[in-house]
Amino acid sequence: MRPFLRTQTALKCSARAARALPTCWAARPFSYSARAASALRPLDASKLEVTKNTTPKPLSKPEDLVFGKEFTDHMLTIEWNKEEGWLNPKITPYQNLSLDPATCVFHYAFECFEGLKAYKDKSGKVRLFRPDKNMARLNKSSARIALPTFDSEALIELISKFVQLEAAKIPEQRGYSLYLRPTMIGTQKTLGVGPPGSALLYVIASPVGPYYPTGFKAVSLEATDYAVRAWPGGVGDKKLGANYAPCIVPQLEASSRGHQQNLWLFGEEQYVTEVGTMNMFAAIKDKKTGQKELVTAPLDGTILEGVTRDSVLALARERLIPEGWKISERKYTITELAEASKEGRLLEAFGAGTAAIVSPIRKIAWKDETIDCGLKATEESGEIALKMKNWIEAIQYGDEEHEWSYVSSK
Amino acid sequence: MRPFLRTQTALKCSARAARALPTCWAARPFSYSARAASALRPLDASKLEVTKNTTPKPLSKPEDLVFGKEFTDHMLTIEWNKEEGWLNPKITPYQNLSLDPATCVFHYAFECFEGLKAYKDKSGKVRLFRPDKNMARLNKSSARIALPTFDSEALIELISKFVQLEAAKIPEQRGYSLYLRPTMIGTQKTLGVGPPGSALLYVIASPVGPYYPTGFKAVSLEATDYAVRAWPGGVGDKKLGANYAPCIVPQLEASSRGHQQNLWLFGEEQYVTEVGTMNMFAAIKDKKTGQKELVTAPLDGTILEGVTRDSVLALARERLIPEGWKISERKYTITELAEASKEGRLLEAFGAGTAAIVSPIRKIAWKDETIDCGLKATEESGEIALKMKNWIEAIQYGDEEHEWSYVSSK
Repeated sequence: MRPFLRTQTALKCSARAARALPTCWAARPFSYSARAASALRPLDASKLEVTKNTTPKPLSKPEDLVFGKEFTDHMLTIEWNKEEGWLNPKITPYQNLSLDPATCVFHYAFECFEGLKAYKDKSGKVRLFRPDKNMARLNKSSARIALPTFDSEALIELISKFVQLEAAKIPEQRGYSLYLRPTMIGTQKTLGVGPPGSALLYVIASPVGPYYPTGFKAVSLEATDYAVRAWPGGVGDKKLGANYAPCIVPQLEASSRGHQQNLWLFGEEQYVTEVGTMNMFAAIKDKKTGQKELVTAPLDGTILEGVTRDSVLALARERLIPEGWKISERKYTITELAEASKEGRLLEAFGAGTAAIVSPIRKIAWKDETIDCGLKATEESGEIALKMKNWIEAIQYGDEEHEWSYVSSK
Repeated sequence: MRPFLRTQTALKCSARAARALPTCWAARPFSYSARAASALRPLDASKLEVTKNTTPKPLSKPEDLVFGKEFTDHMLTIEWNKEEGWLNPKITPYQNLSLDPATCVFHYAFECFEGLKAYKDKSGKVRLFRPDKNMARLNKSSARIALPTFDSEALIELISKFVQLEAAKIPEQRGYSLYLRPTMIGTQKTLGVGPPGSALLYVIASPVGPYYPTGFKAVSLEATDYAVRAWPGGVGDKKLGANYAPCIVPQLEASSRGHQQNLWLFGEEQYVTEVGTMNMFAAIKDKKTGQKELVTAPLDGTILEGVTRDSVLALARERLIPEGWKISERKYTITELAEASKEGRLLEAFGAGTAAIVSPIRKIAWKDETIDCGLKATEESGEIALKMKNWIEAIQYGDEEHEWSYVSSK
């Protein structure tokens, strides 16, 4: 087993590849430049050009906002091509993309994205939450599908300027934020299957309300064993568009039976992997010792490397271990959850992701069983999920000064 | 194990789903209409509206054509939305698509496609090769990612009219054709992860030359065991964009070591699945009986259901069995190929796909071995690959009348 390529390696490899190609083949699947990646222009935040929108449009009232439906008046765009590298970044009025119908993003899913939020703190400063993690992941995602990589700090600086420009569009109420969607797409307009010779990196912004406007609402899941989201050696750990469209039908199947999300199992062992588009956590008491354990699946290549997952783990290690908890990244099965539930040892379970921070789980339908996840009928969240939400929000909104919170500047 | 959803089921299921959704969730991941699919307008070829391009542009000389780089002057487009169904089909001048940057095709890979060719026969008639197979597969692909399905015959009729309009752009020389790319994309412009409420089906056309302009050129493959293209329960048998972008880096890796394509292995057993973007065939002589066998991997959900694959199998059953061949769709391993090669029993191997029809394979690099696929140093193709190319081309160009050849009409 060779380890997978990391950031930049794809570029180097393709340069070698282009040289090695026999002529008969070169004209077809590969069109990458043999020019060294190092000779190309890096992403340069100082070159930002801003064109303001002269006809801004009003947004809905904060309480009427729907996730990802309304966008601010501007967008950040940066073009890349294999001859020049990254062109000057631009902030322009929010506008349609005009693309040739042969563009490779429409045919071969050359696309990856990130989701992060900007929060307004009590003093009016605009804060990002761990943007370095999103940038690192976007670089890993793009390299995996032969899209260009970029300097993470430069993109954070550009996003920082972008959210400053849109600061007035960030609702001030607690729980509200500006959802940011960095996206990279391949823009080469030929049908040959090969690495894109051009790409577009863009960021759009959507003001959003709290995921649970009236407090937590514990969800019901259906365990999916007839379809597989990710597999070893695949791309399930990258934030690629390719991982999303195939998940909709299993989600609809779960919904048709009254569940809010599906839970992805893997393999004959029926390992618990992810819930819908979130990472999954379970709090279990050990059968023999009574030791309380917060468990989540390990990053084995089949799990999305969630920023919220990482934050939950770090806070749990810092703040729950002293309270006697054990924190584990390990494989665990649906059978283990079912058994713990029957024996009253499943204390709680929750999903973790940027949209909701945490999403408490009431029950999981699995085959003919219903696994009760430990909440009382009157409860909508367990103790750990609630603590995590409060801890993470305090950092996101700057109530607690923390290195994870990045204060943006113009 | 429940079987996967088929054509139309996704629509029905989502209608059920929408009704079953609790209010708190309904505003977020799902936005599908509860309106019955049957009330929506079907795809209707008789409603075609044609706007001719008044400024046609010249194409390169046939011998200078590069696959999928130049397109004809028109395109066929059909919009769909969940309230109305399929709108009137349109043939318009070839033009850019103008899409909101939040459009779901850019984020979640709501996209699937087909590839087929139109050929001009000796009498000037324009023929399609087995378009019913492409339509059936496109419907399966689209249903699997919650995009709308359509009446196959209606789309064949529309494509037929489209190629008639572009008939002058189909080179008449043998080996030349008009490559057609039906594509369906989700066009809903919101970031919630759910079934697209609108879609665009379009067809573009690129005149192409023969894959091997100067005769066959046998290729060298590298067996890929560090990355996995598809998995049981996944979507590797559908023609989704999602299956393509993740394949580029392994292809580049193979190219960097001088190979033209990679060969996808699967599992600990190292089953042979597909070669690059083609299906794979091997001709092997049995160790004990000397029986000659043409073998390809079975359609177990991890293999693309290639139209050329199906055609090779059908012709082999019809024309090679009488010559004493055994034709098998069965699992086989790279070890089996290596052993047969060492013992002189690997007669030949080839890829099969729309672009090249067949692509003879000279050798496969696997770990530290090189598997010789049976060609003499002076040969660029084995006997079966050559026969298949000739048989299939004779049908495609109408030299042999066959039910697979569809003569288009205005």
